[in-house]
Amino acid sequence: MARYIPAPFARLCEQFERLPGIGHKTAMRLAYHVMLMPEAEANKLATSITDAHRELHYCSVCCNLTDKDPCFICSDQSRDRSVICVVESFKDVSVIEETREYSGMYHVLHGVLSPMRGVLPDHLTINHLVARIRKGNVKEVIMATNVTVEGETTASYIAKVIKPLGVRVTRLATGLPAGGNIEYSDEVTLARAIVSRMDM
Amino acid sequence: MARYIPAPFARLCEQFERLPGIGHKTAMRLAYHVMLMPEAEANKLATSITDAHRELHYCSVCCNLTDKDPCFICSDQSRDRSVICVVESFKDVSVIEETREYSGMYHVLHGVLSPMRGVLPDHLTINHLVARIRKGNVKEVIMATNVTVEGETTASYIAKVIKPLGVRVTRLATGLPAGGNIEYSDEVTLARAIVSRMDM
Repeated sequence: MARYIPAPFARLCEQFERLPGIGHKTAMRLAYHVMLMPEAEANKLATSITDAHRELHYCSVCCNLTDKDPCFICSDQSRDRSVICVVESFKDVSVIEETREYSGMYHVLHGVLSPMRGVLPDHLTINHLVARIRKGNVKEVIMATNVTVEGETTASYIAKVIKPLGVRVTRLATGLPAGGNIEYSDEVTLARAIVSRMDM
Repeated sequence: MARYIPAPFARLCEQFERLPGIGHKTAMRLAYHVMLMPEAEANKLATSITDAHRELHYCSVCCNLTDKDPCFICSDQSRDRSVICVVESFKDVSVIEETREYSGMYHVLHGVLSPMRGVLPDHLTINHLVARIRKGNVKEVIMATNVTVEGETTASYIAKVIKPLGVRVTRLATGLPAGGNIEYSDEVTLARAIVSRMDM
C-alpha cells in the first residue's frame, strides 16, 4: 500500500480484503467506516469476531456449528429423530430451516468429496454419520448436498455406504425452480424436470 | 435472528450488517467465512480493528488520519508548503495522492457545512485552517471539496473566510470527465464545461 497510508490503516484494509467478495476499494471503504465509528463500536465488532470463534464449536451429534452441546436442533425434543438431512455446510442448515418444511435432524459434512482437491471420505463427517445410523432409530436419510458434480458424487458415495444399514436414502428433487421460465431454463435442468415429471 | 442460529454467530452477523454496503445475506456470508478461518486469522482481523482505532489519530497540522504526528505528508520536507489542498474527508487525500499530480500539503475538514444536518463552521476544522494560513508561508489554497451542493457551499464559505488573509483561493476544475461522452453527459456538467472552456 502507498506510503502515505498509515500502517495500522493499511493492515486493517488488508484484513478486510481477505474476506470473500471484498476487493481493494470496498476494503478501503470498510476501513474508513471503521475509523469513523466510535471506538466502543469498533471494539464491539472486533470482540464479536473473537467471541464467535471462542464460543462456537461443532455439535457432537450433528456436527453443526453451536455454542452449546448438543446444538439447539439436536436438543429439541419436538423434532423427528428418525430423519437425518445431510448437508455440505452449516450454512445450508439455516437455509433449510427457513423453508419451515423440515422438522427432522441434520448432519453437516463440512465439505464434499473432491479427489482433485484431496478431499477424501475420511476428511468429511461420514464415519460419524454411519455411527449415528448404526445406533438405530433412523428411518430415512435425505441427501441435501448441492446439485453439482461434487455434490452429486458425495451423495452417491454416502448412499452406497449407508444403504446396507437398512435406511431409506432419498435425494432432494431436481427440476424447474419456483418462478422458473421454461424458455430460459438450461437443458440439464429441463431434462431432469422431464425425467422426474409427476402425476397431476 | 432465528432461534436455531447460535447467539455468538448472530451477534457477529449483526456487527457485519452495520458496515456500509453490507446487507443481511452478505453479513451471513462474511460471518460464515470468519468461522471457517483458522482462529489465529480471525484474531488477526479482530486485532487489526482495535489496533487501527488505538494507533490512529488526527495529524495536528492537517487533521489527516495518522499513526505519528505530524503525519507522513506534513513531515515530508520535499513537499511544497505554500499550497494547501482542502478536502472533505481523509479518503480524498489518498485519491488525490494517487494522481501523482499534487505535491503540496492537505487540510482535512472532516465534513461539509450542512445547516440542515446541524453541521456548522465550528464543527469542521476551518478555524484550524485559518490559523495555519495566518502563520504565513501559504500562497494558495485549493478547494477540493466534492462538486455537490454542500461541497460547493463549503468551498464558497471557506473562500470568503480566507481570501481576506491574502492567499490565492482556487477550486478544482469542473467539466467533462476523462473518457466522457458528450451524448451521455448530464446538462449541468456540459453547461459547466462550456462556461469553463479553454483555449487550445
